[in-house]
Amino acid sequence: MVKLRVKNALIRECMAEFLGTFVLLMFGCSAAAQVKTSRETRGQFLSVNMAFSVGVMSAMYLTMGVTGAHLNPAVSLSFCVLRKVSWSRLLPYSLSQLLGAYLASALVYLVYYDAIMEFSGGVLTVYGPNETASIFATYPSEYISLGRSFLDQVVGTGMLLLCILCLGEKRNTPAPPGLIPPIVATIVLGIAMSMSANCGGAINPARDLGPRLFTLTAGWGVEVFTCYNYWFWVPLVAPMIGGLLGTVTYLVFIEWQLPDPDPPSDLSLPPTPGKDFKELQAATGSGVELKMARF
Amino acid sequence: MVKLRVKNALIRECMAEFLGTFVLLMFGCSAAAQVKTSRETRGQFLSVNMAFSVGVMSAMYLTMGVTGAHLNPAVSLSFCVLRKVSWSRLLPYSLSQLLGAYLASALVYLVYYDAIMEFSGGVLTVYGPNETASIFATYPSEYISLGRSFLDQVVGTGMLLLCILCLGEKRNTPAPPGLIPPIVATIVLGIAMSMSANCGGAINPARDLGPRLFTLTAGWGVEVFTCYNYWFWVPLVAPMIGGLLGTVTYLVFIEWQLPDPDPPSDLSLPPTPGKDFKELQAATGSGVELKMARF
Amino acid sequence: MVKLRVKNALIRECMAEFLGTFVLLMFGCSAAAQVKTSRETRGQFLSVNMAFSVGVMSAMYLTMGVTGAHLNPAVSLSFCVLRKVSWSRLLPYSLSQLLGAYLASALVYLVYYDAIMEFSGGVLTVYGPNETASIFATYPSEYISLGRSFLDQVVGTGMLLLCILCLGEKRNTPAPPGLIPPIVATIVLGIAMSMSANCGGAINPARDLGPRLFTLTAGWGVEVFTCYNYWFWVPLVAPMIGGLLGTVTYLVFIEWQLPDPDPPSDLSLPPTPGKDFKELQAATGSGVELKMARF
Amino acid sequence: MVKLRVKNALIRECMAEFLGTFVLLMFGCSAAAQVKTSRETRGQFLSVNMAFSVGVMSAMYLTMGVTGAHLNPAVSLSFCVLRKVSWSRLLPYSLSQLLGAYLASALVYLVYYDAIMEFSGGVLTVYGPNETASIFATYPSEYISLGRSFLDQVVGTGMLLLCILCLGEKRNTPAPPGLIPPIVATIVLGIAMSMSANCGGAINPARDLGPRLFTLTAGWGVEVFTCYNYWFWVPLVAPMIGGLLGTVTYLVFIEWQLPDPDPPSDLSLPPTPGKDFKELQAATGSGVELKMARF
Repeated sequence: MVKLRVKNALIRECMAEFLGTFVLLMFGCSAAAQVKTSRETRGQFLSVNMAFSVGVMSAMYLTMGVTGAHLNPAVSLSFCVLRKVSWSRLLPYSLSQLLGAYLASALVYLVYYDAIMEFSGGVLTVYGPNETASIFATYPSEYISLGRSFLDQVVGTGMLLLCILCLGEKRNTPAPPGLIPPIVATIVLGIAMSMSANCGGAINPARDLGPRLFTLTAGWGVEVFTCYNYWFWVPLVAPMIGGLLGTVTYLVFIEWQLPDPDPPSDLSLPPTPGKDFKELQAATGSGVELKMARF
Repeated sequence: MVKLRVKNALIRECMAEFLGTFVLLMFGCSAAAQVKTSRETRGQFLSVNMAFSVGVMSAMYLTMGVTGAHLNPAVSLSFCVLRKVSWSRLLPYSLSQLLGAYLASALVYLVYYDAIMEFSGGVLTVYGPNETASIFATYPSEYISLGRSFLDQVVGTGMLLLCILCLGEKRNTPAPPGLIPPIVATIVLGIAMSMSANCGGAINPARDLGPRLFTLTAGWGVEVFTCYNYWFWVPLVAPMIGGLLGTVTYLVFIEWQLPDPDPPSDLSLPPTPGKDFKELQAATGSGVELKMARF
Repeated sequence: MVKLRVKNALIRECMAEFLGTFVLLMFGCSAAAQVKTSRETRGQFLSVNMAFSVGVMSAMYLTMGVTGAHLNPAVSLSFCVLRKVSWSRLLPYSLSQLLGAYLASALVYLVYYDAIMEFSGGVLTVYGPNETASIFATYPSEYISLGRSFLDQVVGTGMLLLCILCLGEKRNTPAPPGLIPPIVATIVLGIAMSMSANCGGAINPARDLGPRLFTLTAGWGVEVFTCYNYWFWVPLVAPMIGGLLGTVTYLVFIEWQLPDPDPPSDLSLPPTPGKDFKELQAATGSGVELKMARF
Repeated sequence: MVKLRVKNALIRECMAEFLGTFVLLMFGCSAAAQVKTSRETRGQFLSVNMAFSVGVMSAMYLTMGVTGAHLNPAVSLSFCVLRKVSWSRLLPYSLSQLLGAYLASALVYLVYYDAIMEFSGGVLTVYGPNETASIFATYPSEYISLGRSFLDQVVGTGMLLLCILCLGEKRNTPAPPGLIPPIVATIVLGIAMSMSANCGGAINPARDLGPRLFTLTAGWGVEVFTCYNYWFWVPLVAPMIGGLLGTVTYLVFIEWQLPDPDPPSDLSLPPTPGKDFKELQAATGSGVELKMARF
C-alpha cells in the first residue's frame, strides 16, 4: 500500500489542526444538536459541556504529537508569543482550524438535518424558542451589554491559557505527558460549566466563526452575523486578547518565579514549530524546559 | 485445584471477546432498564451513556491483554484491514461478541423482569410510551429517514475509530498503556452524548443484534425486526462502513504523516492475533510501532 | 511526639478496614441524606452514586497498602478463596467493616439531624414519601419479588468481583497500581447507575447491615429489619454468593487462560494478609503474579 | 525580555497561593453565578460542585510545585502542625488566599454583573428567592442550628484532610505525583456532593471570608455578616478544628501504623516551606518519606 505522505511539514501540520478542530466540533455541535432537537430528553446543558470536553481530549490525542494541539487561534497566538511555535504558523494554523470547524458544522447539519427540521418546523432562525442557530455558533444572552460580553470572553480564554500553560512545566508539578489531553479537557469542561452563561463560552475564534459561516451558507441567512448588533466579532477578538492576558498572568505569577533549571541545556536551539510540545511530551527523564525570552 | 486452561488459542480469545461484550452490555442495558423502569427517578439519559462507558472500560481491562479488546465487529473489521489481527479472526470474534451481547440481554431481563412487567403492564412492545424494547436494542426516532439514520451510524462509528487508533501510537502522544481503557470509554461516552439522538447510537453490530435477537425470543415478537420498515439492518451494516471510513481518515490525516520510526525493527514478524496490542501495552521503553502496509 | 503504633498486625489491619468503610459510608450516606432532605435541590440520584464512588476511591487510597482495601465482606470472602488473604482475617475484617459502617451512619445522622427532622416532620419511618430509612440501609422496590432481589444482589456483586480482579494482573492489561482506586471507584459507579433500581444496590453486607443496625438503635424501630417480610438478609447473603460467582467467572474466562508467567518466582512464599496487594502495587518492574491454587 | 523574578521566597510563595485561590474561586463562584442567574437552565447544583472541583485541580497544578498547593488556611494549619511547612508561613499564606478569593469574587461580579442585575431585579440581597449573596459566600439552611452547622463544617473539613494526607505516602498506595491534583479535586467533589446541604460546604475559611468581604463592599451590605445571627464565623473557625481532627484521625489510624521506611534518610533536614511537597512529587524512585515528629 502506498502511504501518501505529504512532503511539506507545514501542510502536514495544517492537516492535523484541521482534523483536530473538526473532531472537537463534531463532538460539541453534535451534542448541542442532540440536546436541543430532543428538547433535553436525550441530554442536558451539562452533557453539551461534557461532549465539548471529550472533543478536546480526542483532538489533542490526534494532534499533540504533530503540532502541539492548538485547535484554537487564541492558543496559537499565545504559543507564538511564547515562541513555542513560529509566527509563520499563526495564519495557516488558524485557517486550518476555521476550515475544520466549518466542515464539522456541515457534517453535523447533514446528520441532524431531519431532527433540525422536525424541531424548527423547517424555519432556520436565530431568535425565538425554535431557534437552531445556537447549535452551531454562540450568541449572547438577551440581558448582556457589549462590553460585558467582551469581558466574558477575555476572562474565559484567559482562564484557559492560565491553567494549561503550567501542565508541562517540569520545575512545577507536571502532569504525565500522556495524560495532558484529559486534563486540558477537564479545564475546558470547567470553563464551560462556569463561564458560558453570558454568551455561550466560545473562547475560540475558529470554533465560533467556522460554524457561523456555515449557518450563513446553509440557510440561516445574514442574521447570524447581523443579530445582536453585529455581535459576532466579540468571540473573534476577545479570546485573542484574553489568551494573551492569561499567558502574561501565568508568566508573572508562576513561570518567572520558578527556579532556573539546573543545566541550561539546548538554549541555543531555534524554536521549531510543534517541536517544543513534542519534546515536552518525550521529556520524562530529560532536562527540557520551556524557553521564554525576548518577546 | 485444576486450572482449566483451554489449549486452542482461538477459543481462548473468543471466550475473552464473549465475556467482554457480555460485561459491556450488562452495564449498558441494565442502566437502560434502571432509567426506563424507574421513570427516570433512578437515573437519566446521561447515566445510561455513562454506564455504557463504564462497561467499555471494564470490558477492556478484562480482555485487552488477550485479544486487544475489540468488543465490536466494526472494530474487528478495521483491525483486520490494518493487519493488527488476522482475517481468520473476524467471524469467530464477531460471533462471540454477538453471543455475549445476547446472554447479557437475557440476564438483564431476568434481573429486571419484575420492573419491566411493572412498567409495561406486562405487554412487551416496541411502540408507545410503555415500550421496553429500547432497553435492549436501538430504534430510530420517528422523524428520521432511512438514509439519514444510515449516515448517523456511519459517522458515529467513524468517529470512534478515528479517535481510538491514535492512542497507542508512539510517534504521536500515546496514552499510558494501562489507561487506554478509561480513555476509550470517555470517547464512547462522548459519542453517546452527541450522536445517539437520531437512532440510539449503537455503533456496534453485536451490541445491537444480540439484544434484538434476545427480545425476539423473549416475547417482544418479530416487530423488533420488522418495525420501522425493517430498519434493523442499519446498525449492522453502517458501523462496518463507518469504521473503515474513520480508519482511512486517521491514516490519511495523521498516521501516514508521522515520521518513520528510527529503527525499522520487527517489520518481518507476521501479525499475531491480539499480539500487537499486548506489545503496545508493554512498549513503555521498547521500539514497537504499529505496522501498516499492503492492504 | 509519641507515635502510638499498634504492635499487633491484625489490629492494625482491622483499624484500616474500620476507617476505610467509615470513609466509604460517610461519603455515601451523607450524599443520600443531602439529596433526600433537600428534596433533590442539592443533588440527584446520580450524585449519590458518584459520592459512593468517591468514597470507594478515598477509602482505597487510605487502606490499600495496609490490607488491600476490602471494605466489603463479600470482597474479603473472595480474597480468602483466592488465598490473597488468610481465612483467619475474614471475620475480624468483616466485623471491622461493620463497625465502621455503623459509626459512619451515626455521624451522618448527627450532621444531618436537623435536616432529617425537617424533612420527616420528626417521624422516623421506613415507608411513605417522608421515609428516611433509605438514607442509611437499602430497601427493595415495591414491585420486586424475593427471588428477583436476591438475583439482583448476586449479579451486582458478581459484576464487581469480575471487573476488579483483572486490574492488577500483569499478564493482562494492568491498570497503573497508583490508579487502581479511581478505576475501582468507576466500576462501583457503573454498578450503582445500572443495578441499583431494584433494591438499592448494596452489594456489600457491611455497607447495609451497619447502617440498618444504626437505624434500629436510633429510633426507626424494628421495622428496618421486619419490613418487606424480613428482607434485610438478602443484601447480607446474596453478595457473598455473587462475589464468589464473579470470581469463578473471572478465573474460568480470563485468569486461567492467560499464559504462565516466565519466571515461576516466589511461588513458595506463604500468603500473608494484605501482602499480595502491597506487592502488587510495588510490582512495577518485578515478576510478582497473583497465585491461585488449591481452593 | 526581562523576567521579573521576585527575590524573596515568601513573596513568591504568597503570589502562588494568591493565584491558586483566585483560580479556585473563579471556577467555583462563576459556576454558582451561571447556575443561579440562568435559573438552572445552564447548569445545576452538580455542575457547581464539579466546577469547584476543576478549580481545585487547576489551582493545584499551578501552585503545587511552589507551595504544595494549600489554597485553604485549614490545610495550611494542618500542614504546619505536621511540620510540612513552617509556622511562619501560616499567616502570610492565609492572607494571600483571602486576597485571591476576594479578587476572584470581584472579577466574577464584573463578568456576571448584567446577569445578576437581571436575576435580582437590581436588589442585592441575602434572603428570598432572588437572593444572590450565595453566589459568593456560603449561608446556612433555614432549619439548621448553630451547633449542627459547626459540626457540619468540622466533619467536612475533617474528611478533606483525612482523605488527602495519604495520597503521597510511599509506604501506602501513593497516587502518581503528577495526578494528585485531579484526585484531590475528586475528593473535594465528593464532599461537595455529600456535605454541602446544611450550610454550603465551605470547608475553607479563605474561600468563604474573601467573597463575604467582597459582597460587603459591593452592595449587599452588612447583612452578609449579621444574617443568621452572625453565622459568618462558623466557616472560619470550624474548618480549622475539623482539619486538625481529620489529620489526627489519619495519623492514629493509618500513618503511625505503617512500617518504618527502610533507610531513615534525611531526617536531619529542617522543614522548608513548600519543599516537602516538591520532594514528594519528584520522589518517583527516591526514598523520600513524610516526616512527622515532635508536634
